[in-house]
Amino acid sequence: VPPQGVHHIGIAVADLDEAVETYRKLFQAEVDHETTIADQGIRAAALQVGGETLVELVAATEADTPVGRFLAKRGPGMHHIAIEVADIRAELTRLAAAGVNLIDTEPRTGLFGLQVAFIHPESSHGVLYELVQLPDDDRGTHG
Amino acid sequence: VPPQGVHHIGIAVADLDEAVETYRKLFQAEVDHETTIADQGIRAAALQVGGETLVELVAATEADTPVGRFLAKRGPGMHHIAIEVADIRAELTRLAAAGVNLIDTEPRTGLFGLQVAFIHPESSHGVLYELVQLPDDDRGTHG
Repeated sequence: VPPQGVHHIGIAVADLDEAVETYRKLFQAEVDHETTIADQGIRAAALQVGGETLVELVAATEADTPVGRFLAKRGPGMHHIAIEVADIRAELTRLAAAGVNLIDTEPRTGLFGLQVAFIHPESSHGVLYELVQLPDDDRGTHG
Repeated sequence: VPPQGVHHIGIAVADLDEAVETYRKLFQAEVDHETTIADQGIRAAALQVGGETLVELVAATEADTPVGRFLAKRGPGMHHIAIEVADIRAELTRLAAAGVNLIDTEPRTGLFGLQVAFIHPESSHGVLYELVQLPDDDRGTHG
């Protein structure tokens, strides 16, 4: 089965509230949902920009976190692309068999209740891809 | 009017054919259209990954071009996000009045017959955004 499309684009930002305000001004973006995950040191907001693909803004609440280190090293900017799949375990098995370098060989729970797994950018020409599978009760509402 | 969503994500790649092959393997991606623009020194392929947002792979055929310089400086990776709007001139007028730093104050013809204009990343937290308006005969077929 081919994927269901681009679920979201992940963008690292220094200040979440300021960035949300900017996206309102630029794209009349609406906050779809917002969350803070204290133990991962992140605050995130998923924004609607008129189509099915969301823009996910992620800020670090602590410097010593993956997003905090990304921001320190590269500054704010595009971080990853999330591709929605129907069956993330089946996709991970298929990709592993094809020799793709997976950061997560098993799905884990990501933001907003998604099941997620990352592909190593060395297998995708320098782009960090995330596979996402929607929670069962959100199926069919997107993509 | 709010935008019509994310039209495509632009990604700079070193070798277009190799990258298309990788995207076939990773995401069962299909080439929607492909083009070479000799005088801009680029080759590009727009890929379908199952949803309405396309992945646009762009390679440089000459080193001394915007994409060639991007690749030399930063390596392959995410380059820009294109937001589809119904009336690009109206959007540019609105954004300019809001004090947004525009790279293109007038739309110009981009890849695949799109009317395009770029927003300066300093106005969008480090992300290069492109506004796109579809050619008249493609309206309603997307987004």
